[in-house]
Amino acid sequence: MAKKKVLVATGGGDCPGLNAVIRAIVKRANQEPDWEVVGSIEAYNGILKDPMELVTLDSKAVAGIHVKGGTIIKTTNKGGPFNWSVQSPDGTWQSEDRSADMMERMNRLGIDSIISIGGDGSQRISLALHEKGFKIVGVPKTIDNDLASTDYTFGFQTAVQVATESFDRLVTTAESHSRVMIMEVMGRDAGWIALHTAIAGGAEVCLIPEIPYDIEKVVARLNSRFTNGRGFAHVIIAEGAKPKDGGIFGKKSAEVGYENVRLGGIAFKFSAELKAAGLQADIRETVLGHTQRGGTPIAYDRILATQFGVKAFEMVLANDFGKMVTYKNNDIQSVSLKEAVEKYSTVNPDAFIVRAARGVGISFGD
Amino acid sequence: MAKKKVLVATGGGDCPGLNAVIRAIVKRANQEPDWEVVGSIEAYNGILKDPMELVTLDSKAVAGIHVKGGTIIKTTNKGGPFNWSVQSPDGTWQSEDRSADMMERMNRLGIDSIISIGGDGSQRISLALHEKGFKIVGVPKTIDNDLASTDYTFGFQTAVQVATESFDRLVTTAESHSRVMIMEVMGRDAGWIALHTAIAGGAEVCLIPEIPYDIEKVVARLNSRFTNGRGFAHVIIAEGAKPKDGGIFGKKSAEVGYENVRLGGIAFKFSAELKAAGLQADIRETVLGHTQRGGTPIAYDRILATQFGVKAFEMVLANDFGKMVTYKNNDIQSVSLKEAVEKYSTVNPDAFIVRAARGVGISFGD
Amino acid sequence: MAKKKVLVATGGGDCPGLNAVIRAIVKRANQEPDWEVVGSIEAYNGILKDPMELVTLDSKAVAGIHVKGGTIIKTTNKGGPFNWSVQSPDGTWQSEDRSADMMERMNRLGIDSIISIGGDGSQRISLALHEKGFKIVGVPKTIDNDLASTDYTFGFQTAVQVATESFDRLVTTAESHSRVMIMEVMGRDAGWIALHTAIAGGAEVCLIPEIPYDIEKVVARLNSRFTNGRGFAHVIIAEGAKPKDGGIFGKKSAEVGYENVRLGGIAFKFSAELKAAGLQADIRETVLGHTQRGGTPIAYDRILATQFGVKAFEMVLANDFGKMVTYKNNDIQSVSLKEAVEKYSTVNPDAFIVRAARGVGISFGD
Amino acid sequence: MAKKKVLVATGGGDCPGLNAVIRAIVKRANQEPDWEVVGSIEAYNGILKDPMELVTLDSKAVAGIHVKGGTIIKTTNKGGPFNWSVQSPDGTWQSEDRSADMMERMNRLGIDSIISIGGDGSQRISLALHEKGFKIVGVPKTIDNDLASTDYTFGFQTAVQVATESFDRLVTTAESHSRVMIMEVMGRDAGWIALHTAIAGGAEVCLIPEIPYDIEKVVARLNSRFTNGRGFAHVIIAEGAKPKDGGIFGKKSAEVGYENVRLGGIAFKFSAELKAAGLQADIRETVLGHTQRGGTPIAYDRILATQFGVKAFEMVLANDFGKMVTYKNNDIQSVSLKEAVEKYSTVNPDAFIVRAARGVGISFGD
Repeated sequence: MAKKKVLVATGGGDCPGLNAVIRAIVKRANQEPDWEVVGSIEAYNGILKDPMELVTLDSKAVAGIHVKGGTIIKTTNKGGPFNWSVQSPDGTWQSEDRSADMMERMNRLGIDSIISIGGDGSQRISLALHEKGFKIVGVPKTIDNDLASTDYTFGFQTAVQVATESFDRLVTTAESHSRVMIMEVMGRDAGWIALHTAIAGGAEVCLIPEIPYDIEKVVARLNSRFTNGRGFAHVIIAEGAKPKDGGIFGKKSAEVGYENVRLGGIAFKFSAELKAAGLQADIRETVLGHTQRGGTPIAYDRILATQFGVKAFEMVLANDFGKMVTYKNNDIQSVSLKEAVEKYSTVNPDAFIVRAARGVGISFGD
Repeated sequence: MAKKKVLVATGGGDCPGLNAVIRAIVKRANQEPDWEVVGSIEAYNGILKDPMELVTLDSKAVAGIHVKGGTIIKTTNKGGPFNWSVQSPDGTWQSEDRSADMMERMNRLGIDSIISIGGDGSQRISLALHEKGFKIVGVPKTIDNDLASTDYTFGFQTAVQVATESFDRLVTTAESHSRVMIMEVMGRDAGWIALHTAIAGGAEVCLIPEIPYDIEKVVARLNSRFTNGRGFAHVIIAEGAKPKDGGIFGKKSAEVGYENVRLGGIAFKFSAELKAAGLQADIRETVLGHTQRGGTPIAYDRILATQFGVKAFEMVLANDFGKMVTYKNNDIQSVSLKEAVEKYSTVNPDAFIVRAARGVGISFGD
Repeated sequence: MAKKKVLVATGGGDCPGLNAVIRAIVKRANQEPDWEVVGSIEAYNGILKDPMELVTLDSKAVAGIHVKGGTIIKTTNKGGPFNWSVQSPDGTWQSEDRSADMMERMNRLGIDSIISIGGDGSQRISLALHEKGFKIVGVPKTIDNDLASTDYTFGFQTAVQVATESFDRLVTTAESHSRVMIMEVMGRDAGWIALHTAIAGGAEVCLIPEIPYDIEKVVARLNSRFTNGRGFAHVIIAEGAKPKDGGIFGKKSAEVGYENVRLGGIAFKFSAELKAAGLQADIRETVLGHTQRGGTPIAYDRILATQFGVKAFEMVLANDFGKMVTYKNNDIQSVSLKEAVEKYSTVNPDAFIVRAARGVGISFGD
Repeated sequence: MAKKKVLVATGGGDCPGLNAVIRAIVKRANQEPDWEVVGSIEAYNGILKDPMELVTLDSKAVAGIHVKGGTIIKTTNKGGPFNWSVQSPDGTWQSEDRSADMMERMNRLGIDSIISIGGDGSQRISLALHEKGFKIVGVPKTIDNDLASTDYTFGFQTAVQVATESFDRLVTTAESHSRVMIMEVMGRDAGWIALHTAIAGGAEVCLIPEIPYDIEKVVARLNSRFTNGRGFAHVIIAEGAKPKDGGIFGKKSAEVGYENVRLGGIAFKFSAELKAAGLQADIRETVLGHTQRGGTPIAYDRILATQFGVKAFEMVLANDFGKMVTYKNNDIQSVSLKEAVEKYSTVNPDAFIVRAARGVGISFGD
């Protein structure tokens, strides 16, 4: 008799731990004699394209992949079953709902259910698919750790660790040269990576989207380091950091010689802003970029991801659909997809961790 | 007016993150104009010895120490105010209760309260001191993560990361040579480090104190790797791992040529046991030893430790004594010292994380 | 009787291994009962300023410093005995020769000789001091490894290792997303770090100052990755990389929205240039900045630096002055300072290592 | 027309960098339209077994392997064309010369020449094959760096780096607890790894095969650390370290409760010996084992290995056989296989690097 099949897809930006989730699903499924796992290449593109790009995921395919960053079934931020780009006869591009076709394809291939590993956007698609009758389980994935329904997502701790190790390297050179170092980390809407790195590394200033900064206060804090004799300072800046009321950074970037078409590179822009605001010290910039979301996951993320994968498959086994796996109160649990997509978790300026950051001398420029 | 003083002491085995706790206490205390921090060298020995060994901990003393392993105020497993060794006139050594003297010394020095960072033993001492009227706050510290009142303790994730990185290195050499690798990790009574490392690394066998193993089953699992074509295997063994019913390992160690005077080195002993039980493959051993509990803490542990330190000092400020800081349900909280020392947390064989480990093919030899 | 004193100074940009040199000098000197080591803070500023900033370097001062980046006696790129800034009565600043005063200060303090650890500029100062009668030994230091008289300088291998580890992290995210990653490394005039990192990491394109690139050829090489099915690519760019005949990068930077006041940030500029030249793929940028020259040195650099330090002090002992320590043909040797400053070592496009890079598919855009 | 084929085999113990050599050979060969590369699985076993185990190595097979430890074509210490085990009709095993058969198989498969990557033993086989008319190029491989004809072999610097990072972790725990730490590293006949790690880490004692130690002197050196106030110490011991005149370690191991059937675990044995010789301090042991020869190679080794691979294939192209690639005087060169196997390089007690080690306070126990 044909085995039952579960489709696995990874969507959104990549994240250390994705492969560990995939491996755990496959290894757990292999313990059930009547199940097998199929991967769709590049999120749902694999099953929606012609010809389809699907791959059987057996134990050989996943051997040793948990130590690797990225995802062996690739990922994309674009498209999806409800938003498929098709070219009209007149040459324009339009968006099409392919969900019915996707159901038809799954039936034809004998695919019973779906495990979708992805971020906010992917989980919204999962909810919509579930409402259309798809048997689906979600696994949360966000490098930014900004989902309210789970305490941690895999990949986040790796990003923090990578950023912290880079920060540690900057400290000795800042000290030897009496400089201000600016390090840009990811975080367009949530400042979790910046906040954690600032505490772990010991920054003097941490700028995050949730707490708009006052450039005068930042300069004052940095200058205090030089007048009190320490003679060097470090700024962690999230790519989505915002000034309190625009200023050079917000309004007059062309004047300071920097015109950014997209996020990334804010470190250089902020450096110019600091100089314009009167900081005398030498400044040096580092932009970690995608080093934060690639490469070998740290143990913490592999363990969390492995538990997510096993849990997700066991939910499939138990016909427990329409839910997303979560890590809550030190326990692997699940919530409804509906609830999962409702709340977004940004840094609460009143949270204890922010107070702890202030307690060790970190200024948020507010 | 003289400042109020809080005494800080670190007791028990060292742990990455101790210095981050100390730094956080000092930095937070420095924000209060009327407080200062005094360190007692080698747990309470510093205040009990003559001459005393106390050190003022100011911001210069703690600058940059959060990235360093160990503890700048040193630690010890021996002694303590209730168990002070004194030599009688007849030359024999006896244990003495020095707690009243310690109170007297604190009063003389103007020391108001204590923050004691330590493990199970240290917290019992803290409870006893509290019951004698000392104003004391505890901060938990155990590399083994075996305190029930806190979800995680700093240092544990660093130990797991160090062990996992070593494990990763063994994998490629095992693969190239078709060998069985045995890696010994810490854990005399609790198998948390072994369990986490086995999942993170992808071991085939994980032996922990909580689940006694059957050597025949271990050999069977290892042989299955060779017959199914993978041709190599990895065993993680906690130093306190126990066989189901003794056997060579428990009873006849002399016969297999190894006589261990204390824990450590079980990898070699178990290697001999495997050979005696008929394993044909080449075996190689690694004993990580204290590399697991020294060196730079990973970011996770620095952040947890920093929060513990700030919280502990804020409890001192709030006159909230007789309690221990905890991390519970993703929040920094506190419990009474009485409750803190009551429960010990070992691996529950029915916990989801153990099921997840089995789900990815890890055998516990049971 | 007073001990003989040797002055140690570190000049120029910092470099992992500086502290290991200092420690080795001090530990070796401590084996001679009649010698002691004095450190001048911030290159020669320490001895030239009023009040002077000098520090006795004993075994306690250097304990454990070999694992730390930076320099415990600080460094600077500015000033020096022949180029001391003084303000004239009319308020203008002028440069002054303080070498005679420095000799007088040394005599007064009983300082016999100097070990100067620094780059090209520092060694030129050493040569000039030697010609004025100072007893001086040079130790080479350059993160760029661009001194012809020594095969390697400490710090360089650490920079390459840091850059390679970052590169490794970019690979998995590039693969998963079908992107082009640009990573900027140090190297204004010499492309050694870029070349080594490109080979170690496995880049497709490596742009260095010594081989001007043709943007069309770079785009062609990158596009070939997408048409041949690999679907992602990596560019390592040295901060001093130059296009063959200007183009957008050289001449029209304002047009592509980027105006760089100094080196650093070329990754963003080059990204804009690639897009302007027609590259379709998504691009992401990383700027490692000073993470490359700070932090714990790798073992290789600690060992080289330790040997340099011991050798330098033994040359002082042997009255073997006017020379610089070198590592040549796998041996610690020395050359005259005159010879040391004469030749600069940039990447020879015909060298075997460049051929090897091309042999593994790296394009230099030429 | 059929392409010319070169056979690649890896023999002896594994070494970080093997895969980088293989990748470089394949990438370079792919630039020649009429060449292809064939891998023999498990040294020459792949071509000598029935059925043969050969694999075509194309660019897809080697993509990204340079960052992985081990060897994708596996390795073995046993067998070889001159020493093939065959079972006689009477059941006994005998050694057979299969070299003529190997030549016949190569001719039949159209394999023109061989690149053999291996240690001392492999190069001796290469020489014998060359003398029988095989067109062969050798690439040196030894984790111990003990070949006199090349200044460095890939893998060695990775082993030193791994050992140094472990050592760094031990330092903080030794300091905090006033202990003696013993770390065992590889090196049965050559103490290079131990010597380099001792300098890089800053050990107090380094015991290597080339300099037999006096246990009394070791104890004296360790005790001096406690009496001079540092209060902790580190011993690096090579697995082949030897006492000057036997003593407990050499002769009476049964008496101290340790009977070692093979090398490995000397740390525990030496620990017992130290106690027996009167050391009072607490001792802790670490045995790095195969973590030293597995896992991701550091950049240095990847670069050296890549150059070796390109050079080896270019020698094949140039019909330059009977030679081994070397790294000598900072240049990639070659020597005759005859010369290559003649000299073995152990630590010369009079070398500058040993003097430098003594200069920073390392005792060899002599």
